[in-house]
Amino acid sequence: MKVLHKSKWADLLAVASFFALFLTFGTASADALQKEAQSLFKPIPAKAPAIKGNPATPEKVELGKMLFFEPRISKSGFISCNSCHNVGMGGVDYQPTSTGHGWKQGPRNAPTVLNSVFNVAQFWDGRAKDLAEQAKGPVQAGVEMNNTPANVVITLKSMPEYVDLFKKSFPGEKDPVTFDNMAKAIEVFEATLITPDSKFDQYLKGNTKALTKVESEGLKLFIDNGCAGCHSGVNVGGDDYYTMGVVERPADSIMKGDKGRFAVTNAKADEFSFKSPTLRNIELTGPYFHSGSVYSLKEAISIMNVAQLGSKLSTTDIEKVEAFLKTLTGKQPKVVYPILPAPTDLTLKPALD
Amino acid sequence: MKVLHKSKWADLLAVASFFALFLTFGTASADALQKEAQSLFKPIPAKAPAIKGNPATPEKVELGKMLFFEPRISKSGFISCNSCHNVGMGGVDYQPTSTGHGWKQGPRNAPTVLNSVFNVAQFWDGRAKDLAEQAKGPVQAGVEMNNTPANVVITLKSMPEYVDLFKKSFPGEKDPVTFDNMAKAIEVFEATLITPDSKFDQYLKGNTKALTKVESEGLKLFIDNGCAGCHSGVNVGGDDYYTMGVVERPADSIMKGDKGRFAVTNAKADEFSFKSPTLRNIELTGPYFHSGSVYSLKEAISIMNVAQLGSKLSTTDIEKVEAFLKTLTGKQPKVVYPILPAPTDLTLKPALD
Repeated sequence: MKVLHKSKWADLLAVASFFALFLTFGTASADALQKEAQSLFKPIPAKAPAIKGNPATPEKVELGKMLFFEPRISKSGFISCNSCHNVGMGGVDYQPTSTGHGWKQGPRNAPTVLNSVFNVAQFWDGRAKDLAEQAKGPVQAGVEMNNTPANVVITLKSMPEYVDLFKKSFPGEKDPVTFDNMAKAIEVFEATLITPDSKFDQYLKGNTKALTKVESEGLKLFIDNGCAGCHSGVNVGGDDYYTMGVVERPADSIMKGDKGRFAVTNAKADEFSFKSPTLRNIELTGPYFHSGSVYSLKEAISIMNVAQLGSKLSTTDIEKVEAFLKTLTGKQPKVVYPILPAPTDLTLKPALD
Repeated sequence: MKVLHKSKWADLLAVASFFALFLTFGTASADALQKEAQSLFKPIPAKAPAIKGNPATPEKVELGKMLFFEPRISKSGFISCNSCHNVGMGGVDYQPTSTGHGWKQGPRNAPTVLNSVFNVAQFWDGRAKDLAEQAKGPVQAGVEMNNTPANVVITLKSMPEYVDLFKKSFPGEKDPVTFDNMAKAIEVFEATLITPDSKFDQYLKGNTKALTKVESEGLKLFIDNGCAGCHSGVNVGGDDYYTMGVVERPADSIMKGDKGRFAVTNAKADEFSFKSPTLRNIELTGPYFHSGSVYSLKEAISIMNVAQLGSKLSTTDIEKVEAFLKTLTGKQPKVVYPILPAPTDLTLKPALD
């Protein structure tokens, strides 16, 4: 396996020894594949994980949900978090890169909000350490919501129902309606957007029958070929940064001149390095790559195989890997649409310019 | 009362006689006000009304909900019905006129979808006879979703889950995935978006204590001043067309040169005539008028009073009418966000141009 990031070498050697063992004995039983999978991946838990330093309460989760769906935190009054991280569409927006303020397009494909709480950091380049920090980005980005923290606070403070909910969500704080607390509330809501009980998770939990023959063959290819080198853990990805194009850099149409994490660290080694995206719910989250330039999952598998692993899977193998990846679709979150507060005369009006 | 449309004269004369009776005897008890209100208005029913020729089934309502939230029926893949008729924001979008494809602005303020099933017809000029006909408009409008029926059908047919749901929703039809059936499904879902149990409806149903003193004084002013001449029935409006500015045409900034229903009928009498909007949930549905040019409810009341009735309410009276209007906020619909189908390679890609 030709893989991809120094911090991973120990793991990879372990995996390699494991396979060497198989080769020695010449068998790889279904049971062994399951054990191997259990050592590489973890199921999505049934409940939202706790956030360090930001305890969830029912009030805070509800407030976070309202803010997630609140278009009035955008300058135009037209764009909410859910516009691009649509909870009914795998947590994404089906756009190559998101449409934002002024009909502008963002620089990178919107990553899914689903299970994002399990990522090592947020954004393709990991520039936000957690979901609270992430939430503050799009609200201010010129090509997204194009708003200012000050104006967000004016708008939120203009509606008594929000003031009351911030008080309840951040008890003991003198001035709870802040931009930071907005982000913290959104974070605890987003932590609830997890998708347990996929077929693959049932398999990981011990149900050997959860995958069909083709799906488990796809899983085996996924592991044997080295895909799991970058896509492992609870999110089947999302846990570290890897060079895009270790073996062969994908076409410019896919890269879009984006140097990824280099912009954050300025380290030569991070040029063209990106956080590996989660493959959870991957059938729902196209188009793929940071550029969002590929809509076909099969094509994405094929491109990654050449770019990262230097192998060329047959069409049948690609179909098997795709079949496996579709077992990563979990139970989608049940979200009751929040009823947002009535505006007042102090609520800022939409500005489209 | 100087009101406004010939078809209403009979009703108005009845109302006038009623008041004459009061004047004769010099008393207007709380009980009489309630009876008067009961003769002019009807409460929102607890359940969605049946649509003639378009029976609701659970499958069809669910399909309609999915389509209502489906941005992929827009050319950009970014705009859904809910973008402008936000079920969490009183069924509207807080924009003077809606933002659509290419960041263009529509010509008129988005009317609320809530309780719209009770309107005599749809759009400000009533050019759609029902919600199914209405639903086909924005999907095709260049400044809204900018799509074509043919492309909508291609996209819907590309997703097996939709094909299956259309089959179940329109049993016995040979080719159920059609643009017309999309609209019919949306119609039955929209019929569920009703807001019963407002304070005013509790009052109409017999609870004399449901309104405070100020609110019932506001109701009395609303009736006595003639507001109920155009805003009566179950929707407190929405039942007929009336000239905007019978007494005095509002400023150009409010009219925006819009001749309303004249564009539909070409009848001189319909110049500057519009469907009276429902006042249900009015505190949630600003900005007001077909132009969406006024955000303050108090200001809207004041403008209408001068334009339609030629009277000039005192600030205190306007506050009373506003207090009454806020009792029209009903129980907002509980909508579980639909999980939309995974796209396939045949699903049309977003086109932003």
